[in-house]
Amino acid sequence: MTKGKFITIEGSEGAGKSTNIRFIQEYLLSKNIEFISTREPGGTPIAEKVRDLLLDKSNTNLCDDSELLLMFAARAQHLNELIIPALESGKWVISDRFTDASYAYQGGGRGLSWQKISQLEQWVQGDLRPDGTILLDIPVDIGMERVRERGETDRFEQEQLSFFNRIREAYLKLAWENPNRFYIVDTQPAIEDVHKQLMLIMDQLSAS
Amino acid sequence: MTKGKFITIEGSEGAGKSTNIRFIQEYLLSKNIEFISTREPGGTPIAEKVRDLLLDKSNTNLCDDSELLLMFAARAQHLNELIIPALESGKWVISDRFTDASYAYQGGGRGLSWQKISQLEQWVQGDLRPDGTILLDIPVDIGMERVRERGETDRFEQEQLSFFNRIREAYLKLAWENPNRFYIVDTQPAIEDVHKQLMLIMDQLSAS
Repeated sequence: MTKGKFITIEGSEGAGKSTNIRFIQEYLLSKNIEFISTREPGGTPIAEKVRDLLLDKSNTNLCDDSELLLMFAARAQHLNELIIPALESGKWVISDRFTDASYAYQGGGRGLSWQKISQLEQWVQGDLRPDGTILLDIPVDIGMERVRERGETDRFEQEQLSFFNRIREAYLKLAWENPNRFYIVDTQPAIEDVHKQLMLIMDQLSAS
Repeated sequence: MTKGKFITIEGSEGAGKSTNIRFIQEYLLSKNIEFISTREPGGTPIAEKVRDLLLDKSNTNLCDDSELLLMFAARAQHLNELIIPALESGKWVISDRFTDASYAYQGGGRGLSWQKISQLEQWVQGDLRPDGTILLDIPVDIGMERVRERGETDRFEQEQLSFFNRIREAYLKLAWENPNRFYIVDTQPAIEDVHKQLMLIMDQLSAS
């Protein structure tokens, strides 16, 4: 059996992940490609409990090391319980965020060393990396405006603008350093134009 | 100001930690030594939430890597929020379990490599190690009999005898490898004899 493809969707706040993930799901349905859709942090019952801890606004004093270790604890569980079995059964896995988000948020945003993150990545994932990563990119001020319009914010969304600027820079750096895996999609144009771009990317991923 | 001393109490299930920690607390009170008493996993509100995840019997499929990362996530928070500030303010810290328990349970018990644990220890603690570690030791069958008499068990206490044998062996190995820090106390004799030994150890720790 051919292994499924592992596609991750990344982007800073307000980049349009939910809408565009729905488009990707519809694309896969239309092509009769079996897939599961999941998210990080979370994706399994235990990892979702860790997610609750991470996003809970009352946990104001969660330290940076603890935040990073919780992210990878949830990820280890997510990989072992859901992602790896799905890929091995031939299904595609679409994940709303994955390890690139740790580099962007805990590395770029919090200032933890990329070397620490890379050690945890190697340990928890071994050689497993996404087959494709779609980075939905938007200037920080426009993204934050969209988040504010949505209403209620979580522990991350309450951070300052400089935090989100560092995250966007980290995402772009990751994309430049991993050109074979990353697809950068500017989500400022009209939704139809964004979807056209996504369709081209998905065509390429499913043909390869 | 002199820094406080960091004393950890270790031991496998049923070794008598609670009773003997109470004796140590009374010793410190009688000597007018300011201290805080804490425990792992846990010790702060966020770390106690992680403890709940770790001990919850319904989390039967928590994977080993995730368990170890959750332990160190809780530890990072515990150190930053409680242990280090207390030691720096001159207070002693008495902790019911610390990193030796990760070597014993996740290393010895689950079979994770000590090198992984040592990397996390170095990262989360830097050079901070306990000033003294009291290992309360008991043969596994006697300890487990005591646990059964107590009634309700948690996710760890439900493991097999071989799991606890590996934990005891790991604890004894740690003690032999770190003779300057470890004090092994056999908790099979009458409680008065155990307390006499603990008093000698505490006298030595407070004099040094």
